[in-house]
Amino acid sequence: MSFSIGQNFRLTVYGQSHAAAIGVIIDGLPAGINFPHQAIQSALERRRPGKQTWTSRRSESDLFEIKSGIVAGKTCGAPICLEIVNHDKRSKDYAQHDHLPRPSHADYPAYVKYQGHHDIRGGGHFSGRMTAPIVMAGSLANNLLIEEGIHINSHIYAISDIKDQTIDPVQPDLDSLAQVKEKNFPVLNDDQGLAMQAAILAAKEEKDSVGGQVETVVTGLPVGLGQPLYDSCEAKLAHAMFGIPAIRGIEFGTGFAASLMRGSQHNDPYYLDTDQTIKTSTNHHGGVIGGLTTGMPLIMRVAIKPTSSIGQSQQTVNLDQSCHQELTIQGRHDPCIVPRVVPVIESMTAICLLDLLIMAGKFPV
Amino acid sequence: MSFSIGQNFRLTVYGQSHAAAIGVIIDGLPAGINFPHQAIQSALERRRPGKQTWTSRRSESDLFEIKSGIVAGKTCGAPICLEIVNHDKRSKDYAQHDHLPRPSHADYPAYVKYQGHHDIRGGGHFSGRMTAPIVMAGSLANNLLIEEGIHINSHIYAISDIKDQTIDPVQPDLDSLAQVKEKNFPVLNDDQGLAMQAAILAAKEEKDSVGGQVETVVTGLPVGLGQPLYDSCEAKLAHAMFGIPAIRGIEFGTGFAASLMRGSQHNDPYYLDTDQTIKTSTNHHGGVIGGLTTGMPLIMRVAIKPTSSIGQSQQTVNLDQSCHQELTIQGRHDPCIVPRVVPVIESMTAICLLDLLIMAGKFPV
Amino acid sequence: MSFSIGQNFRLTVYGQSHAAAIGVIIDGLPAGINFPHQAIQSALERRRPGKQTWTSRRSESDLFEIKSGIVAGKTCGAPICLEIVNHDKRSKDYAQHDHLPRPSHADYPAYVKYQGHHDIRGGGHFSGRMTAPIVMAGSLANNLLIEEGIHINSHIYAISDIKDQTIDPVQPDLDSLAQVKEKNFPVLNDDQGLAMQAAILAAKEEKDSVGGQVETVVTGLPVGLGQPLYDSCEAKLAHAMFGIPAIRGIEFGTGFAASLMRGSQHNDPYYLDTDQTIKTSTNHHGGVIGGLTTGMPLIMRVAIKPTSSIGQSQQTVNLDQSCHQELTIQGRHDPCIVPRVVPVIESMTAICLLDLLIMAGKFPV
Amino acid sequence: MSFSIGQNFRLTVYGQSHAAAIGVIIDGLPAGINFPHQAIQSALERRRPGKQTWTSRRSESDLFEIKSGIVAGKTCGAPICLEIVNHDKRSKDYAQHDHLPRPSHADYPAYVKYQGHHDIRGGGHFSGRMTAPIVMAGSLANNLLIEEGIHINSHIYAISDIKDQTIDPVQPDLDSLAQVKEKNFPVLNDDQGLAMQAAILAAKEEKDSVGGQVETVVTGLPVGLGQPLYDSCEAKLAHAMFGIPAIRGIEFGTGFAASLMRGSQHNDPYYLDTDQTIKTSTNHHGGVIGGLTTGMPLIMRVAIKPTSSIGQSQQTVNLDQSCHQELTIQGRHDPCIVPRVVPVIESMTAICLLDLLIMAGKFPV
Repeated sequence: MSFSIGQNFRLTVYGQSHAAAIGVIIDGLPAGINFPHQAIQSALERRRPGKQTWTSRRSESDLFEIKSGIVAGKTCGAPICLEIVNHDKRSKDYAQHDHLPRPSHADYPAYVKYQGHHDIRGGGHFSGRMTAPIVMAGSLANNLLIEEGIHINSHIYAISDIKDQTIDPVQPDLDSLAQVKEKNFPVLNDDQGLAMQAAILAAKEEKDSVGGQVETVVTGLPVGLGQPLYDSCEAKLAHAMFGIPAIRGIEFGTGFAASLMRGSQHNDPYYLDTDQTIKTSTNHHGGVIGGLTTGMPLIMRVAIKPTSSIGQSQQTVNLDQSCHQELTIQGRHDPCIVPRVVPVIESMTAICLLDLLIMAGKFPV
Repeated sequence: MSFSIGQNFRLTVYGQSHAAAIGVIIDGLPAGINFPHQAIQSALERRRPGKQTWTSRRSESDLFEIKSGIVAGKTCGAPICLEIVNHDKRSKDYAQHDHLPRPSHADYPAYVKYQGHHDIRGGGHFSGRMTAPIVMAGSLANNLLIEEGIHINSHIYAISDIKDQTIDPVQPDLDSLAQVKEKNFPVLNDDQGLAMQAAILAAKEEKDSVGGQVETVVTGLPVGLGQPLYDSCEAKLAHAMFGIPAIRGIEFGTGFAASLMRGSQHNDPYYLDTDQTIKTSTNHHGGVIGGLTTGMPLIMRVAIKPTSSIGQSQQTVNLDQSCHQELTIQGRHDPCIVPRVVPVIESMTAICLLDLLIMAGKFPV
Repeated sequence: MSFSIGQNFRLTVYGQSHAAAIGVIIDGLPAGINFPHQAIQSALERRRPGKQTWTSRRSESDLFEIKSGIVAGKTCGAPICLEIVNHDKRSKDYAQHDHLPRPSHADYPAYVKYQGHHDIRGGGHFSGRMTAPIVMAGSLANNLLIEEGIHINSHIYAISDIKDQTIDPVQPDLDSLAQVKEKNFPVLNDDQGLAMQAAILAAKEEKDSVGGQVETVVTGLPVGLGQPLYDSCEAKLAHAMFGIPAIRGIEFGTGFAASLMRGSQHNDPYYLDTDQTIKTSTNHHGGVIGGLTTGMPLIMRVAIKPTSSIGQSQQTVNLDQSCHQELTIQGRHDPCIVPRVVPVIESMTAICLLDLLIMAGKFPV
Repeated sequence: MSFSIGQNFRLTVYGQSHAAAIGVIIDGLPAGINFPHQAIQSALERRRPGKQTWTSRRSESDLFEIKSGIVAGKTCGAPICLEIVNHDKRSKDYAQHDHLPRPSHADYPAYVKYQGHHDIRGGGHFSGRMTAPIVMAGSLANNLLIEEGIHINSHIYAISDIKDQTIDPVQPDLDSLAQVKEKNFPVLNDDQGLAMQAAILAAKEEKDSVGGQVETVVTGLPVGLGQPLYDSCEAKLAHAMFGIPAIRGIEFGTGFAASLMRGSQHNDPYYLDTDQTIKTSTNHHGGVIGGLTTGMPLIMRVAIKPTSSIGQSQQTVNLDQSCHQELTIQGRHDPCIVPRVVPVIESMTAICLLDLLIMAGKFPV
């Protein structure tokens, strides 16, 4: 079903932006696992709105509650339900959108699909707020992966055409990547980060928005993870990433640029490392061949569109009166959501990889 | 499971490149549907090897047999099993690969995953040959979509850096696209097509290979198709596409380039067409917003890597002796698989969209 | 996953007997459906403990809250989350069971499965309390079935060897069955009901418990509902029923007694009714042949074991000290759970049938 | 989907009684497993028609072919496709049934469901012949269970009211049960077996049929197998068993008779065996409590209806002319299918238990 993801480690999310609450049911973990309360709250904090000049001013503490599944700080085998109560709901801001669909939002297709019965307040269940449950489940998964020596790190690869420092796909600098997680603006090169933030604020000044790209690197994966065909690493990750609002493309390794290369350039030759492990001297495949991990770093980039909500006047259609109408969106919105998407992408990655590990019998259930 | 895809229209594929046969079980169609024998055989012909100078010389007639599910030319409600017997198997060509993994093939991660028990002949179940069952199921699905007024058309968007003519994302020229399906080399602009073929042959001369991109346009979709979050149009299509060997990236609408735009440029304004239908004056979203179709053409591009098998000597590791070794691949292979992937992508698209239509109750079951 | 059931109408339950809350996520309903708040609360009331002399004295108001999915009294297309907060938790009653497994409870196998980390308080997620979420989802489903003219009615078929009045499987008396729903003790023949209650109280007096059987009749089903083989009506219903604690057997139509009959007796001959509909003059199949509904009343009986918790001293093993030990269960428990299981069985039946209707395209999504 | 069963060990069956072939795709086994060709063929032989005076005279050799998934006698990680070609098809025998539905067969509800397009020859995909693929997959699964020390044994518990010798549910006589597998008529007590066969022949003489019950005992299961609620051992087994044609009821342990007992009788007290393992001194639960195995023998009984096809004249309705009509079934049919169902039940049991073992991480994938 469309609100569930995963096969052996499985999430079901619920809620709308302005419902009583949003939450997630997590099924598939063994009993006796330490519940990383603080790590989950910290991950939520990374995603939370209202912290920066360039984020929405919606003020949510995003403190979560455990509804079930945890006893004495450990999993007990029952499904884990984690919930965040929605506090700061200014639902009246959205009153006009039931007949004036916002360009680039789901308003119009949702109006047709749900025959006008969908929740328009704050984007309903199409809201980016629905990624908070993902972050809760993802940071729980991530904690388990770390114990297996698997590390997921992301950085803002680009805001508009301003790019961060490049990561070596063969030997990524893990120390630098680890530091990125602690930063308010998650880039490797802080000078480029300042330029990116300037671009975001410039767009905000002009009541406009900007997009960007996020790059993710996963190290420590065993060789041969993933299944052929429809449970391949790429299939599962791509499926999950397109469940995040605003994502418009995904590529692995050299990705789209691979289509410009010759086979002799793109093929990654095998060699024996000094410790006798088999590696590839290049990593154009981004750590995945035939859907299976190669043991090299898994590398993935996603493209994020500029925020749909902008303060400029836009043309739309009045659904009640079947006529054109100018629309100026009120409410609170981020001029750029890329920084806040970073922990969501890491969470989704953790969810998919833990699912594949359990499926492969490489994680004790 | 990893060899099945789809929820309400569901396929399960079986076989290996050099197994007795390859085939597909199709479940979820109502009884009484005409079985398009000729359309399926024609679609297989588009994918078949051995036809062009730039395709593999493996000679397979790819005639399929009906094992079950069809009575008097119509579906009977039982699962449909369609099978192709493998004839031209030169398995000895592959004898060395059990200990000499080919760069860019699944050989090495599969060796680890399956502890050496996988079928190395012809790539086993990682072979591109596993896409023939997809084409059978997909052309069956496509036939049903055509009856619903839904048309799926693809063209080679690029071979290396040589690009085909651009498609108007708002008003695609359907006549031109329909003609592409009849061409041996599926491009809109035949001059560009000749340049692309020259590039392929040049690579072949140098025992090398090239990659490219395929663009797909779907027209006639109802508004509001797809589900929020994990059964979104993009999630389902991306999942399916990464089940096709050699695909390295996917984007919808303006895709990765959207990350370079401002919201005021990327947002697609709504307007009322002369027939009072609601449309967008641009189509940067490629016909999908919030996971749901907008009624505008659905537009998707995938990146395909250069063929992994090349005739040049490559460096690899001897798995038995744990030492470096040069490898020169024998056997038959395409210097470019992009043209043969085109019907596979169309098939996968048809499979996903029919599944979503059934899920939405818009197709009678 | 083990806490989810259904394919197109799908539930995911969460909670434990003494967790903060228990609840259910419901996915798969179209938008715009009226939410039957009162019907759900009434159904919960039928299942609620603490009402009768023969039920547990645990005092729960079982008032539920809507967490998501409902806007202005209608479904909005988002997943529906309904929750009941657990109030009356006397967790100390259960302190001894972490090392003294109660006979006939899941304590011991759960101890092994979860390596001692499961929630022992109130039976944790094995508790009968986990059926309250089922009743919420089921009464929502039931409300929709009623609108389609499908009626689900159950009665206590037997307590120990005391049987209720027989239902005519060909022409059940629907008026009488409808009245049963309003009764505190749901039987057709109230004299038999009094005898049953006397048997329950007699067992209670002796610190013992009794079991029984529940019979369910569904009328108004279309012909041909269900799928062959693994989504047959019986397969889906049986699967769901064995998710209810304490159920030990299920049979359809004449059931186990059919094994004593000859084919000439058991076969149900077809005839044309006065309104030209095709019926069977007997209904040994209980309205299902080959997994598909025949249009005759669907008839199902389940066997319910005597309550596991009894006040008598029982022999068990001390898991900590690996020695035998006598156990006397404290806490509150029903001497017979059969009456409280009746609404749960009706709910599960409604859930399965709505799922099959949606799957068959006979319910608008 | 309705032709697939299992989550981690998953089957998809195809075919109809008179299609070109019947077969099964098996997904979820690791590579490197020995393929038990002979054991599978032997299991098919146990199910095969045409051997006894009391079985159908349809003459099928039921020799199977491997289509994929096996290389050098071992699994290779690709899906395993096993197929049986249908040879002895007397399709003309069935010509009348497209308008004269046979009582107790799926003909009429299938006619409505499939609007007349279903395959009537030999019962199409509702035929008992669809259990041959199950036996192939099941004996493969069973072979793996035996290596884990898990043994599944069944006997004919009753034909009509003639019962076989009782099995001790606490300490079943495994030697006797193992011998039953070798018998043409699988009972413990051969005298009772002769009486049962006489009853079958007596029914045959009178152009009639008889039903019966099959009891299954599984030993060697680990404690704690199964999941709570919807993947409980009983839920999964019951789901699977009702995918076998002609099954009308299922019960575990003392089953329906448990409803007549008091808790003090039915509860199984724990004790420490001489080897310090925890056991129960009675086994009314049939080895399953709360959906989880207890380590005691798993005991299950299913009720099988008398064969639907009988030689006597029966009343039905002519679907074309909407009038009553007498029907006398031609063709070949068993007066009792109980003996042939025995290996099917064992196969289904093996399939479910292997799935649960993989799900629990207790079988290496």
